[in-house]
Amino acid sequence: MSIYNSLAGKRLNRIEGLSDGVFSIAMTLLVFNLKDPLTGAVQSDKELWLALQSILPALLSFFLSFMTLGIFWTGHSTQFQFIERSDRNLNWISILFLMFVSLVPFSTSILAGHINNRLSIGIYWLNIFFLGAFLYFHWLYARRKNLLSEKENNLVLIDKGIRNRIITAQCLYAAAALLCFWSVYISIGAIILIQLNYAFGIINRKTTK
Amino acid sequence: MSIYNSLAGKRLNRIEGLSDGVFSIAMTLLVFNLKDPLTGAVQSDKELWLALQSILPALLSFFLSFMTLGIFWTGHSTQFQFIERSDRNLNWISILFLMFVSLVPFSTSILAGHINNRLSIGIYWLNIFFLGAFLYFHWLYARRKNLLSEKENNLVLIDKGIRNRIITAQCLYAAAALLCFWSVYISIGAIILIQLNYAFGIINRKTTK
Amino acid sequence: MSIYNSLAGKRLNRIEGLSDGVFSIAMTLLVFNLKDPLTGAVQSDKELWLALQSILPALLSFFLSFMTLGIFWTGHSTQFQFIERSDRNLNWISILFLMFVSLVPFSTSILAGHINNRLSIGIYWLNIFFLGAFLYFHWLYARRKNLLSEKENNLVLIDKGIRNRIITAQCLYAAAALLCFWSVYISIGAIILIQLNYAFGIINRKTTK
Amino acid sequence: MSIYNSLAGKRLNRIEGLSDGVFSIAMTLLVFNLKDPLTGAVQSDKELWLALQSILPALLSFFLSFMTLGIFWTGHSTQFQFIERSDRNLNWISILFLMFVSLVPFSTSILAGHINNRLSIGIYWLNIFFLGAFLYFHWLYARRKNLLSEKENNLVLIDKGIRNRIITAQCLYAAAALLCFWSVYISIGAIILIQLNYAFGIINRKTTK
Repeated sequence: MSIYNSLAGKRLNRIEGLSDGVFSIAMTLLVFNLKDPLTGAVQSDKELWLALQSILPALLSFFLSFMTLGIFWTGHSTQFQFIERSDRNLNWISILFLMFVSLVPFSTSILAGHINNRLSIGIYWLNIFFLGAFLYFHWLYARRKNLLSEKENNLVLIDKGIRNRIITAQCLYAAAALLCFWSVYISIGAIILIQLNYAFGIINRKTTK
Repeated sequence: MSIYNSLAGKRLNRIEGLSDGVFSIAMTLLVFNLKDPLTGAVQSDKELWLALQSILPALLSFFLSFMTLGIFWTGHSTQFQFIERSDRNLNWISILFLMFVSLVPFSTSILAGHINNRLSIGIYWLNIFFLGAFLYFHWLYARRKNLLSEKENNLVLIDKGIRNRIITAQCLYAAAALLCFWSVYISIGAIILIQLNYAFGIINRKTTK
Repeated sequence: MSIYNSLAGKRLNRIEGLSDGVFSIAMTLLVFNLKDPLTGAVQSDKELWLALQSILPALLSFFLSFMTLGIFWTGHSTQFQFIERSDRNLNWISILFLMFVSLVPFSTSILAGHINNRLSIGIYWLNIFFLGAFLYFHWLYARRKNLLSEKENNLVLIDKGIRNRIITAQCLYAAAALLCFWSVYISIGAIILIQLNYAFGIINRKTTK
Repeated sequence: MSIYNSLAGKRLNRIEGLSDGVFSIAMTLLVFNLKDPLTGAVQSDKELWLALQSILPALLSFFLSFMTLGIFWTGHSTQFQFIERSDRNLNWISILFLMFVSLVPFSTSILAGHINNRLSIGIYWLNIFFLGAFLYFHWLYARRKNLLSEKENNLVLIDKGIRNRIITAQCLYAAAALLCFWSVYISIGAIILIQLNYAFGIINRKTTK
């Protein structure tokens, strides 16, 4: 039994290592959307300052996506606090989850380049939706296949907390994305507010401290 | 003996860390083939939608290659569940294996850019072939040099399962690649079907659960 | 209690893995500022040599930023020698810290491209300032929430050492950045001197050996 | 004492994680030198084949640099099999070592773009020289500061083996680089032969099996 556990533990190490890798690269690649706005024509400090202002939309979507990736990294790594064993299917759910992680810099660059366009919000929301869907499915599968730690006493509470958290967040994201039919900027603002709440807010502290 | 084991274990950590790194970067770099299809001329939602359709071949090969990398990452990390010690040669087999992992974004970009061209299928297949060959050789070397865990009871069965799996998969990939002389699209479709089978399918569950 | 510890330890592994990932990618991406200065016109060795000289400013800022990242990586990983547990907030402070780590290649490219411009020094300094601020806040939070190792005897001394080190360094960086109103080159030179001192210098050895 | 050990061990984990990260990224970024040689004009399989031939110099230097990085990764991680503790200075030697690791894709791109040019060989050799110098210094420092494992019986032999290996290799690299005054291609061929010997060869097996 202990041999099996050590093998299973090792497997967790690998999928965790791969996840940290994909997340850290996706986070760092976001910076490629911030292209140097300065041309040869910019010489005075004032001109440089004006040029920097032109990349503010890119900076905004950089911050937005860094928060997105931070939130889903936290969600994914929190699940592994309670997951004790893994099997091939669970790893594959993670790999598909990571596929959508690696797409975040792409959907961010579309958003940054077309910030007035409703469809670019739609694409970005679709990316968040699939991240949430695979994260939810990851937990559901681990629970159904009894891959969770048996030493944990509050599994029922934790299970409820993790699932409610994902569903509530996804409903809020969908609502925020729909706001784009009113105004794209309000839509982005709402998404950022939801993210700030999930990163530092009240709901956060109650469910999975 | 225990000192030797801990040293050997450490070595496994390093080559595993390097592998996770190369795989996660290769996976994330695939996204660079998805270039923003939107130009300044695209303004309405409908134009954006049409522009997105033009990157469907790139999206298809993105998905194809993410599956490829996921399958070979799973194959490589599964071997390490049974490998207990490493030596310099085994590490070098992994490094050459990783060389072909790092080439996947390159052969993917050729495939995405020339999806109607038989030779681009040939290059992509060659990449998969070398991945399989080094994976097979990696296992063969570990088994012959007695680097496998001695605590494992079913080593004979596991050995057979791992080797058959690689050989069957490679035969199927070769057959699928040959289909390109009939139709390139059927060839790519066949490769994706093989991948879906290996990621989630029946053969999978029997051999190395 | 031991279960809790192992869980907490695991969490440390993940945020440490993410940090190492972001730092290593940011370090390696710095090299993208070093564009091949050779065009088709360069054929003789002498022409190549002259062309290489033209990238000296880029090489200088590459070295500057590699030192910057090395210093903050050291500072961040040193804190984790004394941090035993983590919570969600501490992880989020790290994630925001990593956001400014991932911005270093961007502010470096601005500095490399506009090395005569005061504002580019200002942007670079702002990046260093936020890195220091989040590093300081990271330690402060861990200490206040009793997340530090209780086995450590010299916590009072260590606490003082870590905090003084960050504050002193930030004062020196601010002073060096202000020198740009006198001369940009003197300003960069002063920053490099401060970095060399922190990497190899005397203060270094006393406080956190 | 055991607390100190666990802290020191943790520190090793971090610098090892950072090293694996930088190495794996540098290895994967090498592929960026392989630009898709196919333009819109290439349509038939024969044209594609001819176009691929034009990237053979880039493929050659890709292979060369992957071997280089593999060799120095092996050298660096082998040292950590015998290093038990670390201190800030040892970490900084590793960070400077990693700086030259991150420069390999850059010097490779210069070599690939100017394969007939002696100076590009000189730059590549300089990169290898600094890698070797910091690797040697890393070991020397660890030995002098008693950071090596005390449980190891053959430390004198291991010490001699590691040091001789680096010095011999560097002499051979320098000699191979000097061959460029005769012929650049012979010079590159000689470097590859040295690398193949160090990766799979005889000297290898004797010294640090």
